[in-house]
Amino acid sequence: MNKEIYFDNNATTKVDESVLNEMLPYLKEQYGNPSSTYSFGKNIKDKITNIRKNIAKLINADYQEIIFTSCASESNTTAIMNAVKSNPNKKHIITTKVEHASILETCKHLEKEGYRITYLNVDSQGKLDLKELESSITEDTLLISIMMANNELGNIYPIKEIGQIAKNNNILFHCDAVQAIGKVIVDVKEMNIDTLSLSGHKIHAPKGIGVLYVKKDIEFNPLIFGHQENNRRGGTENVPYIIAIGKAIENILNDPESNINIKKLRDDLEQKIITNIEDVKIYGDKENRLPNTLNVAFKGVNAEELLLMLESFNIFVSTGSACNSELAEPSHVLVACNADLENYSPIRISLGKYNTEEEIDFFLKRLITIVNMIRRRK
Amino acid sequence: MNKEIYFDNNATTKVDESVLNEMLPYLKEQYGNPSSTYSFGKNIKDKITNIRKNIAKLINADYQEIIFTSCASESNTTAIMNAVKSNPNKKHIITTKVEHASILETCKHLEKEGYRITYLNVDSQGKLDLKELESSITEDTLLISIMMANNELGNIYPIKEIGQIAKNNNILFHCDAVQAIGKVIVDVKEMNIDTLSLSGHKIHAPKGIGVLYVKKDIEFNPLIFGHQENNRRGGTENVPYIIAIGKAIENILNDPESNINIKKLRDDLEQKIITNIEDVKIYGDKENRLPNTLNVAFKGVNAEELLLMLESFNIFVSTGSACNSELAEPSHVLVACNADLENYSPIRISLGKYNTEEEIDFFLKRLITIVNMIRRRK
Repeated sequence: MNKEIYFDNNATTKVDESVLNEMLPYLKEQYGNPSSTYSFGKNIKDKITNIRKNIAKLINADYQEIIFTSCASESNTTAIMNAVKSNPNKKHIITTKVEHASILETCKHLEKEGYRITYLNVDSQGKLDLKELESSITEDTLLISIMMANNELGNIYPIKEIGQIAKNNNILFHCDAVQAIGKVIVDVKEMNIDTLSLSGHKIHAPKGIGVLYVKKDIEFNPLIFGHQENNRRGGTENVPYIIAIGKAIENILNDPESNINIKKLRDDLEQKIITNIEDVKIYGDKENRLPNTLNVAFKGVNAEELLLMLESFNIFVSTGSACNSELAEPSHVLVACNADLENYSPIRISLGKYNTEEEIDFFLKRLITIVNMIRRRK
Repeated sequence: MNKEIYFDNNATTKVDESVLNEMLPYLKEQYGNPSSTYSFGKNIKDKITNIRKNIAKLINADYQEIIFTSCASESNTTAIMNAVKSNPNKKHIITTKVEHASILETCKHLEKEGYRITYLNVDSQGKLDLKELESSITEDTLLISIMMANNELGNIYPIKEIGQIAKNNNILFHCDAVQAIGKVIVDVKEMNIDTLSLSGHKIHAPKGIGVLYVKKDIEFNPLIFGHQENNRRGGTENVPYIIAIGKAIENILNDPESNINIKKLRDDLEQKIITNIEDVKIYGDKENRLPNTLNVAFKGVNAEELLLMLESFNIFVSTGSACNSELAEPSHVLVACNADLENYSPIRISLGKYNTEEEIDFFLKRLITIVNMIRRRK
């Protein structure tokens, strides 16, 4: 196979051809500024409103609650800093040990500013204990920030229950739904979510576009100042990428079945790995897991070495999250799971809609060969 | 003429064909995450470093001082909030009445937080008085934020002198260089600039990419948290747009002469307007003005009406700045100039490298006809 086999769709995804085709006119002839008075730019405003409506539809929100940002990291930072600014008299935030770096780094920054942060534990499968969440709440708690699905393990967290706990205690609830969107049903009303983050590049739109949902009846303080997005986010609209995320969301709305195929491929791969390779460990919560994610370790096989050997066959998987990979530190998620990383260091396989049975078979054969080779050498 | 005549290049610009061609592979096959461990994403890192070097070259900085952001509004907000966080004991900022909305709105926000902001006046030509700047400085002053060139008038401000004043007083100096870049020489060292903002979409790259230069030896506090950009700006890199702004900057570096033609067209147009139409008023500082900008009013002719009639010929100019156009308020820049907007409400003509003599002639004829028609009707 000459083409790459890309099994790292939780890190980023290929831009869909339909998405690219939709956005291209806005990189060419449709270059007007949507804030212009004249029609050449202004017409784009209506198109953008329709996209807001589609995004709102996907998460059961109202279109005025949709703010375009440059990425989910911006959305996450904005949501947390907004909660802080809206509650000047409270100084406690609850999050988890397995959140994305943008959440954890914002919390670390706030710790330096005098805030107290509770980082909830997870068990060996990466599961949260909602009793620990409830017992962490105090009168000083201003925000609960918990991701909908974990990028490394694929765990889906009980967001509806968490939202109810937040609501019962009159605490803002932020949910990072980057990995969940398009894979599980998101309903901000039913889930009692106050703010929610999305990212384009995890759903076949380009890197550099995000969404922040902000519930209508909560206070909002911008992170980036200016008149756009109804005074909630400054900066000339990234029209091509807004068009792109619009098309990507439309594709999700029109194809609710695509995850069935992805799940079939993943389950099939998982089963074949267990059948064909000894001493395998699957990380994560097998009961509540994204359909595309498989975090798997092979006893005595170093994940970095495995990754490099797979790369020589043009197969791309990851160890840990791409956002942290440069740090060359063990994954904070697996450390939180108290994983035996010495013996079982995992690779993450995250499938996408372009992956095929043929690729799975090609990968499996190489994987078996490489694992056996590394093990024999020891 | 069927094609639009776009004379609003200070609002946004068309993406250059060479820029689009350079970025397209990164919207197609080169979709890896640059933070990945494997080569498929990682190779992009080197390319991005080269782009940082080119941008640094254009403004006489070091490449480690270049941070990619999503837009100049983000760069401006980051720079101001950084100055504030770096100087917790000081509470005074000096800026001007004619800055971009992202600067003014950030300052307004800070006023609510207890900061004192001095908004420097401009004279009828939009010129600053450096004596007023000097006399505004107190021991409490933490930042001077002044744009290099004004988007509406085209005025170029004496940044080197302002930088020297800031340095002499040991005050941080932020410069919004969005309108200046590619049109005037920017030298952050000679100009004593501590932080500087750039935008891609004013130089024929797409909307949604900005740059923030941050001088090496000053403290830096991120606005968006995460590991990217050397822990200074979270969010997966917008690879296609970074490639795009890289090519746009390369084009500027390779074509230092293009402004000569633009200036010739502008000067020619200005002269012909004055010769052919009576009671014309040119706003701005004719001695120190961007080569592409012409802010012009015709006595008794309402600019909004003129804009609409020009639009019917597919000619696009603006009244005020696009960022403010939706507000339907008089331009804050012209109000600061104490302009006689009742009698002389101006249109802004801002040329770009694609404009031609033929377009100028076509425009001039229509302009003369329309102005005469509106005046006769009264």
